[in-house]
Amino acid sequence: MQINGQPYRTIWEDPAQPGGVFIIDQRQLPHEFKTERLEKLEDFEAAISEMHVRGAPLIGAAAAYGLYVALLQVPVGHSWPDWAATAGERLKKTRPTAVNLAYAIDRALSALSASASIEQAQEVAHRIAVAVTEESVSHCKAIGDFGLPLIEALSAEKKGAPVQILTHCNAGWMACIDYGTATAPIYAAHDAGIPVHVWVDETRPRNQGARITAFELAEHGVPHTVITDNAGGHLMQHRRVDMVIVGSDRTSRTGDVANKIGTYLKALAAHDNGVPFYVALPSSTFDFTITDGIGQIPIEERSGDEVRYIQGLHQGEVKSVLLTPPQSPAVNFAFDVTPARLVTALITERGICEASEEGVLQLFPEYR
Amino acid sequence: MQINGQPYRTIWEDPAQPGGVFIIDQRQLPHEFKTERLEKLEDFEAAISEMHVRGAPLIGAAAAYGLYVALLQVPVGHSWPDWAATAGERLKKTRPTAVNLAYAIDRALSALSASASIEQAQEVAHRIAVAVTEESVSHCKAIGDFGLPLIEALSAEKKGAPVQILTHCNAGWMACIDYGTATAPIYAAHDAGIPVHVWVDETRPRNQGARITAFELAEHGVPHTVITDNAGGHLMQHRRVDMVIVGSDRTSRTGDVANKIGTYLKALAAHDNGVPFYVALPSSTFDFTITDGIGQIPIEERSGDEVRYIQGLHQGEVKSVLLTPPQSPAVNFAFDVTPARLVTALITERGICEASEEGVLQLFPEYR
Repeated sequence: MQINGQPYRTIWEDPAQPGGVFIIDQRQLPHEFKTERLEKLEDFEAAISEMHVRGAPLIGAAAAYGLYVALLQVPVGHSWPDWAATAGERLKKTRPTAVNLAYAIDRALSALSASASIEQAQEVAHRIAVAVTEESVSHCKAIGDFGLPLIEALSAEKKGAPVQILTHCNAGWMACIDYGTATAPIYAAHDAGIPVHVWVDETRPRNQGARITAFELAEHGVPHTVITDNAGGHLMQHRRVDMVIVGSDRTSRTGDVANKIGTYLKALAAHDNGVPFYVALPSSTFDFTITDGIGQIPIEERSGDEVRYIQGLHQGEVKSVLLTPPQSPAVNFAFDVTPARLVTALITERGICEASEEGVLQLFPEYR
Repeated sequence: MQINGQPYRTIWEDPAQPGGVFIIDQRQLPHEFKTERLEKLEDFEAAISEMHVRGAPLIGAAAAYGLYVALLQVPVGHSWPDWAATAGERLKKTRPTAVNLAYAIDRALSALSASASIEQAQEVAHRIAVAVTEESVSHCKAIGDFGLPLIEALSAEKKGAPVQILTHCNAGWMACIDYGTATAPIYAAHDAGIPVHVWVDETRPRNQGARITAFELAEHGVPHTVITDNAGGHLMQHRRVDMVIVGSDRTSRTGDVANKIGTYLKALAAHDNGVPFYVALPSSTFDFTITDGIGQIPIEERSGDEVRYIQGLHQGEVKSVLLTPPQSPAVNFAFDVTPARLVTALITERGICEASEEGVLQLFPEYR
């Protein structure tokens, strides 16, 4: 997608500089736009755990490239298969909730296992990293194509008045490689000339909505308004939201959705007000072993300091300010689980399905 | 209540300095504790509209004192009754949602109307301001007494394990004169030796929870943890909240509650998880003319800059930082309405009642 008129992806190789990748360091957005080169395993671990890159699909691609780069630098005293396993374990630990990360690593390790030499293993790891990346792009494109008719139908109902779409966190192209998941239908509609307006939840504590979704939409020219996470219920009560679209970090086989903390509250409000609530997700977020999202999906608990402090721009510099009394503790759960009963439908790269085991397995019969 | 070991109220007269009042300027809390003297009508208008003072009961008391101070300074060319009406109108406009404000002003204007002289009018206005203030204190005390057995019962069920209470915004003593409304039962339980722990919603955009409720609880020694507004649903799903207590800015005769934006989302989550959801309110927040809270209670819309910027402490100074892309607009609704069907009960100074017209009118039969 475009930033300041330039086409970008969130992770890319430069043929002139092999042995690493470039990423957009998303931590200072929207105040500072910086790119960063990752060329050691430690760079990838830090970039994922400290959220230079974030969003399930992008984390998966970054982890796959991390494993490839690790194989270019097998330390003395390690065999390459042993080191690949170690690097994979280390990368898996960087973010516990996103299933894409484990999925990408396991896929690469499985493909590697047949390699006869370190050179062959490197080539396989690179091929998998490219495949994970390109598949994400094509999956997001497909999600946009499948979601577009939902927005077109609302636009027709509203006789061309802007379709009001609420989204939470950033399931945009900055969370993916391109297009985004929740944003893909929105960009598709906007690019097709359908008037849309997006209510952007700021998404405390890390404000991925106010910082990143708003930045994306502004750069692409999509009308939007930032709101606090508290405001969505009021807007829905007053018929000012036509649909909600969010992403997913992990999806159960029964259609429960683990997404950014607070998603569940918006789903409750949508349900209470008869507003359709869609979850857009690539199938890599499915965890087909899980039947009870609330009981079985582990929820990452991050530092309370992400609640106690916040970053913003002051006189041209990004500064971190303390929000709470110094002696007050804080806790910080990164995700919550929205039960399938509150989800109108799932929008995947294979099409749209009901958020239920039967609905999911109709689209993904190989997991029956 | 106590601040740094000193007893305080939020508004008080000093007999040595008549003709005005002192308040705690709450804007810089918890980072700076400042008191401020108000001695002109304009001081009161600014203090209320710019939220030096906030919270329905405190706003009512401040407005009553504002009318009194206005009567000490009738401008040349105005009769005192004419000026009292003008000052009352100006004060009523400072915050449109809080019904206490209009209630306090109308009560004072009605009492004044029989005065035979400006001196007598001043005396009556002062008497009403004192009465509004002292009634708030005794009402909060009574709310604490009526709410205490609810917490005692949960404590007994939990065999003395801390009762986990979630609150939103600040319906604490800083929103009142003393004790608070939602916090009154909590302070009563804590002071009675019942172990409690409070989940404090930060309450964007103005963070009255993270700033003021956390400050109050810390100064009084009540165990608490600050959470984002997004976190409450997750905590309730995992049985980590035993009850919710919030305040009200305006309450319909049918039990609908207008409170800080986001209250409705917590009520939905409490309902979905079988967690009791109590609203503690002095009867001055009732608007007995209103039967449909969502349709009839006007919701104040404040500046979007309260969403786009936030204040916090940086290197010992309170600074305002920009959170959003400079080109992204924001909207800022200050309240939402929680329908009575989601409210377990109302805790008032007269006792506890069902959130329904029948329940309310059993406690307040004079409004039948």
